[in-house]
Amino acid sequence: MRALTARLPILGWLPRYQQRDLNGDLTAGLTVAAMLIPQGMAYAMLAGMPPEAGLYASTVPLVLYALIGTSRQLAVGPVAIMSLLTASAIAPLAEEGTARYVELAALLAVMVAVIHFVLGALKAGWVVNFLSHPVLVGYTAAAAIIIGTSQVKHLLGITMPSSEGWIETVTELVRHLGEVNWTTVAVGVAAIALLVGLKRWKRTFPSALAVVALTTGAVQLLSLEDRGVKVLGEIPSDLPMLAVPSFDSSVVGSLLPAALVITLAGFMESIAIAKVFARKNRYEVDANQELIGLGSANLGAGFFGGFPVTGGFSRTAVNAQAGARTPLASLITVAIILVALVLLTPYLESLPSATLGAIVVVAVASLVDWREARHIAHVNRADLVPMAVAFVATLALGIELGIGVAVVTSLGLLFLRLMKPHTAVLGRIAGTHAYRNVDRFPTAERIPGVTAIRLDTSVNFVNVAFVKRRLTELVAEEGDVDTVVIDFTGVNDLDASGDQALHEILDELTERGVDVHLATVKGPVRDVMMRSGLWQRLGRHVHLDVDAAMESVARHEPRLEAAELVPPTSVIRSFRSVSA
Amino acid sequence: MRALTARLPILGWLPRYQQRDLNGDLTAGLTVAAMLIPQGMAYAMLAGMPPEAGLYASTVPLVLYALIGTSRQLAVGPVAIMSLLTASAIAPLAEEGTARYVELAALLAVMVAVIHFVLGALKAGWVVNFLSHPVLVGYTAAAAIIIGTSQVKHLLGITMPSSEGWIETVTELVRHLGEVNWTTVAVGVAAIALLVGLKRWKRTFPSALAVVALTTGAVQLLSLEDRGVKVLGEIPSDLPMLAVPSFDSSVVGSLLPAALVITLAGFMESIAIAKVFARKNRYEVDANQELIGLGSANLGAGFFGGFPVTGGFSRTAVNAQAGARTPLASLITVAIILVALVLLTPYLESLPSATLGAIVVVAVASLVDWREARHIAHVNRADLVPMAVAFVATLALGIELGIGVAVVTSLGLLFLRLMKPHTAVLGRIAGTHAYRNVDRFPTAERIPGVTAIRLDTSVNFVNVAFVKRRLTELVAEEGDVDTVVIDFTGVNDLDASGDQALHEILDELTERGVDVHLATVKGPVRDVMMRSGLWQRLGRHVHLDVDAAMESVARHEPRLEAAELVPPTSVIRSFRSVSA
Repeated sequence: MRALTARLPILGWLPRYQQRDLNGDLTAGLTVAAMLIPQGMAYAMLAGMPPEAGLYASTVPLVLYALIGTSRQLAVGPVAIMSLLTASAIAPLAEEGTARYVELAALLAVMVAVIHFVLGALKAGWVVNFLSHPVLVGYTAAAAIIIGTSQVKHLLGITMPSSEGWIETVTELVRHLGEVNWTTVAVGVAAIALLVGLKRWKRTFPSALAVVALTTGAVQLLSLEDRGVKVLGEIPSDLPMLAVPSFDSSVVGSLLPAALVITLAGFMESIAIAKVFARKNRYEVDANQELIGLGSANLGAGFFGGFPVTGGFSRTAVNAQAGARTPLASLITVAIILVALVLLTPYLESLPSATLGAIVVVAVASLVDWREARHIAHVNRADLVPMAVAFVATLALGIELGIGVAVVTSLGLLFLRLMKPHTAVLGRIAGTHAYRNVDRFPTAERIPGVTAIRLDTSVNFVNVAFVKRRLTELVAEEGDVDTVVIDFTGVNDLDASGDQALHEILDELTERGVDVHLATVKGPVRDVMMRSGLWQRLGRHVHLDVDAAMESVARHEPRLEAAELVPPTSVIRSFRSVSA
Repeated sequence: MRALTARLPILGWLPRYQQRDLNGDLTAGLTVAAMLIPQGMAYAMLAGMPPEAGLYASTVPLVLYALIGTSRQLAVGPVAIMSLLTASAIAPLAEEGTARYVELAALLAVMVAVIHFVLGALKAGWVVNFLSHPVLVGYTAAAAIIIGTSQVKHLLGITMPSSEGWIETVTELVRHLGEVNWTTVAVGVAAIALLVGLKRWKRTFPSALAVVALTTGAVQLLSLEDRGVKVLGEIPSDLPMLAVPSFDSSVVGSLLPAALVITLAGFMESIAIAKVFARKNRYEVDANQELIGLGSANLGAGFFGGFPVTGGFSRTAVNAQAGARTPLASLITVAIILVALVLLTPYLESLPSATLGAIVVVAVASLVDWREARHIAHVNRADLVPMAVAFVATLALGIELGIGVAVVTSLGLLFLRLMKPHTAVLGRIAGTHAYRNVDRFPTAERIPGVTAIRLDTSVNFVNVAFVKRRLTELVAEEGDVDTVVIDFTGVNDLDASGDQALHEILDELTERGVDVHLATVKGPVRDVMMRSGLWQRLGRHVHLDVDAAMESVARHEPRLEAAELVPPTSVIRSFRSVSA
C-alpha cells in the first residue's frame, strides 16, 4: 500500500481529505482558473498554437498531475519558456496555423513525456544539477527578452512572419515600423497599464481576466476591428478530445534536442518552485516521482490537443497564496476551464491579440531579475562568466543552443577551478591549536626551516600536474626549508593518478633533502594511501593534525601519531562500502 | 638574451658545451642511431609509408627539436602509436603505396605541427591533464594489441588488405590462415627470439640492427626470397628533400580529428618521458616550449618526406642510459642516419618484412602493462572503470574514437564523485583536539544532542542538491539533535549556488529548532560568505575549528571565535587576487 501511495500520491491525501481544507482549495482553484484562461490562450499564441490548445493543455494534464504528482500547491499548465521552445522547435518544420503544426506539437509533448519517464526510471532527477543558479538567471532573462520581443508585433498591430533568431526579429520589427496600427497600440498600452496597476493593487485579483473582458468589450462596443485591431476570431466550443499523435520517425530526430531542452528547463522550473512550497508547508517532494507526474501531464497534453506543459512559477505562487491545501485545487481549476471552453469561447471571438501579447509581456517582465544578477556577481565574481555567457549565448544563438553553451561553459569553469586549486602557507594563530594562511593572517606564528602548506583540493588526474608544480614551487620560494608539513584537510579524494603524483612529489622533495610530513588525512584518502603503500612509506610522518605535526617536528620526537590510530582492518573493511 | 634562450634553448647549452660531455653524447648518438634505423623503417611500414620515409622522419625533425626543445635526453622520431594513428587516418583516403598516401601523411604532419603551435601559443599544455593515468594505461595496452595484430600478417607471410577495425583484422587473419608461409614464420620467430634474448642480455646492444643484418644476410645466402619470404625491395639512396605539402582543404576536415588525437597522444607520451629524465638530471622542461619544439619537429617531418613524430619512450631511455648529456647526441644520430641513407640502403633490399614486423611486435609488447593495471585497480577501484573503458572502447571502436570515449568517461566519473561527496559524523579522539569519523573510530567521544558533521567537498552547483539532502538526512537520522556543527575543512570552494543552498539549509534547520555552527572556514569560502551576508548571519556561530566549536557549544559560552579573527579589510583586499 505504501509503495502504491508513493506511485499514486492521491491515494495518500484524498481519503484523509478534511472539510477545513475545502475552503482554501476552492478559492485557489477559482483564482488560478481566472488566471489560466487568459494565460493559457496567450501562451498558446506564443507557442504558435490556436487559442483553444492553451485551454486544452490546462485540463487533462492538470488532472494527471493531481493524481500522480507529489506537490500539493504546484499549478501545472502552459508556461512562457516552454511555449517559446515549442514554437522554435516546430516553426522550421511546419507552418503556423496548419494542422501539421498542431500535430507536431502533440508529438513533441509525447516526446517530452517519454524523456521525463526515462529520467524518472533512471532516478536521474539530478541531471538538473548541471543547470547552475547563475546560468538559470542569465538564461531566463534572455528567454524573457526573446519572448517579450516576439509579442511586440501583436502590440503594434504589425503583420510579419516569425523569424529564426532574436536579432532577426528585432531587425524585422524595425523594417515594419511604418505599418504600426495606433489603435492596436492604444489597446496594448491600456492592457499593460491595467495589468501592472491591478497586480500592484491586489496580487490575487484576476487582473488578466478583467483585462480580457474589458478589451473584448471595448472592441465590440467601439467596433475597433474596423480600425485594424486584430482579434482571435472564432474559437471552437469543444471539449478536449482524445487524438493519438502520429508517430513520424523522420521528424523525431529533429525534435529531439528541443524535447531534451524543454524537459530539463521545464523540470528545473517546476521542481524549484515545488520545493519552495513543500518546505513552507512542511512536506517532501520526491524529484523522481515528480518526473513521473510531469511526464504524465505532458502525455495528457500530447493526447488531448495540447503542447508541452510544466509547473509554472507565478500561478503556483498565486495558488499557494490563495490558500491551496491539496491538489483538489487543481481539479477545481480544471472544472472551471471545461465550463469556460463550452460557455465562454463564443464571447472571446473579439478578444484582441494585443491583449494576449500584453499578458505575456507583463508575465515575463519579472523574469529579468537584475537584483539577483547583481547579488550573484557580488557574492562570487567567478559566477558572472556563466551567467553572462548564458544571457548572451541565448540572445545570440537562440533559446536551445544558448543553454547548451552555458552548461558547457559552467562545467568548463568548474574544471578550471579544479585544475588550479588554492594553496596556502600556514602559521599558528597565537594561543590556539589552529593554523591559518599567513597571507591573510600576517601575525600567525611560523617555525624557521619548517613550511606548512595547505592543499585546498582533491588530488586527481585533472590537477596532478598543477599540484606537483605548485608544491615544489612553494618549497623553492620559501628558500631554506628542511621540513614540509602538507595539511590534507582539504584533500577529499585521491585517485590513482593523484597517488602516483604524491609518490613522485615525495621522491623529489626527499632528493632535495626535504623531510615531508602529512597531517589530517581523511578516511577515504587514507584507504587509497594504504593500498598503494604510500601510508607505510610515510610511517610516523603522518600526523593527527597540523598542530601535532609541528610539535613533533619542533621536538624531533613523535607525540601521538595518526599512524597508531588506524582502526582495525575489520572496521575498515566493514565501513569501506559506507564511507570509502 | 634570456628570452631568446628560452625560445631557442640551443643558445643556452651549445656555447657552454664541455669536452667531458662529448664522450657520453657520442656513445648515445651512435646507440640511438643503431636502434632508430631499423625502428624507423618498421614504424614506416606500420604507418603504411615506404621504409625510407621512416629514415627521413629521423633526420630534419631531430635537428629542429635539438635547436628548440627543452629536454636534453629526449629522442624524437617515429613512434608506434603515432604511426598506427597515421595509418588509420590516411587509409580511408588513399591507397597504401601511392604518392597520394605519402602526400597526405606530410599534410597530416603539418596539421599536427600547427596544433602543437596553437596549443603552445595558448599556453595550453595542460590539456593533457584530461588524459588520466588509468585511461592511458588502458588505451596504450589496447593500441599495442592493435599494432601487434596489424603485424601478424607480415610475420605469417600472408597477403591481405589492411582492415578498418581490430575485430575485422582478426577475422581476416583467420580467413587467410591457410596461406601461411612457413619459411617467413621461421624468420619471424627467429627475429623475435633474438630481439628478446639480446635485449635481456644487454639493454644497449643494438639488437634490432643485429637482427636486421642477420636476417638480411640469411635471405641472400639461403635465397629465401624464392621460398616466398617477402623483402622490402629497392630503397632509394636519396637524402631527405624539401617538398612543400599540398594543402588540400577537402581532406583537412577529415584529417582533423586524427591530427588532434595524434597531437594529444604524442605530446602526452613525450612530455611524460621528458619530465622523468629532467628530474633525474636536475633541470626543467617547459611544457609550452616543448609544444613549440615538437611542433617544429613535425613541421620538419611534413616538409621533408616524413610523417608525424614525437619523443619516444624506449629510445629516450636508451639515449639516457648510453650517456646522452645534451641534444648534441641527437645531432650525432642524424649524421649517422644520413650516412646510412646513402651507403646502407642498397644492402637493405633483401631485408624481410617479417623482421620489421618482429621489431614492432617486440617494441609494443612492453606497452601492455598488466602489473600497472593491477596496481591501479588495487589502489583505487574506481579507476578500474575508465581504464577498462579505454581498453575496450579502443579495441572495439578504434584508436581515435576509443580515447575520446575514455576521456568523456573519466570526466563523467569525476562529476559523479563531485556530485555525491563523502560526509562523516565526527567524534573526538580521546586525549586530543582531533575529531574523526565515528564509523571508522568507534571509540571517538561524542556529546549528546550535538552532531558534528564533516562535509568532504566544495559546495557548488553540481552537488548543492545532494549536500542539502545529505545534511538534513544526517540530522534526521541522529534523532534528538539540538545543535549541528558543520566542519568546513573539506570545503575548498563555494559558488553562488552553494552559498544559496547554505542559506536554505540554515533556514530549514533553524525552523526545526536546530542550532547551526560552522568550524574551520577557509579564506576563499569566507570571502564568499562575507559578501553574501552568510558570515554576518552566523555571527559568533563560526568557530576556529571543531574543537573550539564543541567547547563553545558544551559550555554555552564562546571561547576565541573565528569571527574575531577576520583580518583587516585592507589585508583581505590586497590578497584577494593572490588567494581568493
